Amino acid sequence: MKFSSEFADELDELLRWRRDVRHFRREPLPDGLLESLLERAALAPSVGYSQPWRFVRVDESERRSAVIASFERANAAALASYHGDDAHHYAQLKLAGLREAPVHLAVFCDEATRTGKGVGRATMPEMLDYSAVMAVFVVWLAARARGIGMGWVSILEPDIVTATLEVPTDWRLIAYLCIGYPTEENDTPELARTGWEHRQPIEILAR
Amino acid sequence: MKFSSEFADELDELLRWRRDVRHFRREPLPDGLLESLLERAALAPSVGYSQPWRFVRVDESERRSAVIASFERANAAALASYHGDDAHHYAQLKLAGLREAPVHLAVFCDEATRTGKGVGRATMPEMLDYSAVMAVFVVWLAARARGIGMGWVSILEPDIVTATLEVPTDWRLIAYLCIGYPTEENDTPELARTGWEHRQPIEILAR
Repeated sequence: MKFSSEFADELDELLRWRRDVRHFRREPLPDGLLESLLERAALAPSVGYSQPWRFVRVDESERRSAVIASFERANAAALASYHGDDAHHYAQLKLAGLREAPVHLAVFCDEATRTGKGVGRATMPEMLDYSAVMAVFVVWLAARARGIGMGWVSILEPDIVTATLEVPTDWRLIAYLCIGYPTEENDTPELARTGWEHRQPIEILAR
Repeated sequence: MKFSSEFADELDELLRWRRDVRHFRREPLPDGLLESLLERAALAPSVGYSQPWRFVRVDESERRSAVIASFERANAAALASYHGDDAHHYAQLKLAGLREAPVHLAVFCDEATRTGKGVGRATMPEMLDYSAVMAVFVVWLAARARGIGMGWVSILEPDIVTATLEVPTDWRLIAYLCIGYPTEENDTPELARTGWEHRQPIEILAR
């Protein structure tokens, strides 16, 4: 299987325009689209072919409200940890699109899975979580290629989100995702556009 | 920025043919290619734009030998943990291409980075590691789009690999990667082809 240089260039564009989205239109996704994204997620790499990713769609308004309340508590605590200009700046950041996004998707890792019979994770057990992280990234890229945006919300209390969703006790929360059509698209991270942080030079990243 | 449905379909093909590679040709990569892959990795998502990924190319033969010795110890210990048919089967698996791959690349997460000022990781500090994981996945996809294979080796003693590479003490080993031209390409995981594990039905992965 060979890929053309045009495809490789377009993949670069996809990576550049992948960005975390916090501004969503409320319009729902077409029927079946989320399901097709999750089937693609199952093509992610996983340690020992363990496939430990578990996806939970959060549709019930009570559950969504509990997650939003958790975000608001965690975000208020985070704000309180900053001082001066940083606190002023943090208060103006929009860090999640939980209220607007039509789809809330929680991603867990089944820490007790026997699939793959433990290959590759005796000395690095965190590989199981990393496998679920890569499944999240597949959803992100496959969504963006179809004009759909995703935002990863980590300003949450994982214990509360996990309890709210009533998943098996061996499941660990990896990601809470907002998915929907973005109000605008951008190739620059929102935290760079707002001046919170800038891109690091490659020299400090590689040796 | 809009992507065509042809591109989205070809992205699906890329995901299907991305697979972990353990059989490499010894031929080196063209000059500058690895560097261009690492620049793309910097387009990965990172919590609070923290960009915590740190790449270390391992070229010195003494260091490579130390990593290979670590793999062999960890692999022997893993083999000893299986019994009966599983032990017989495990002994036949080829789980790394460390001897043949022209490029060894270690990926670390700088746990002490101040970039991003801590946004998004107060309640889920593991987000920093997850950011480095996504950078690994970008390298994987960008490499495969150019006909280059990658294998992620996690059957290693992370403390020994980290000490061998003499990186700052705050850097945590996320991944040890073999990169090079594959001897063959495949759209099915090697662990599925050898019968070690099979693909899980989507029903158990989503709810």
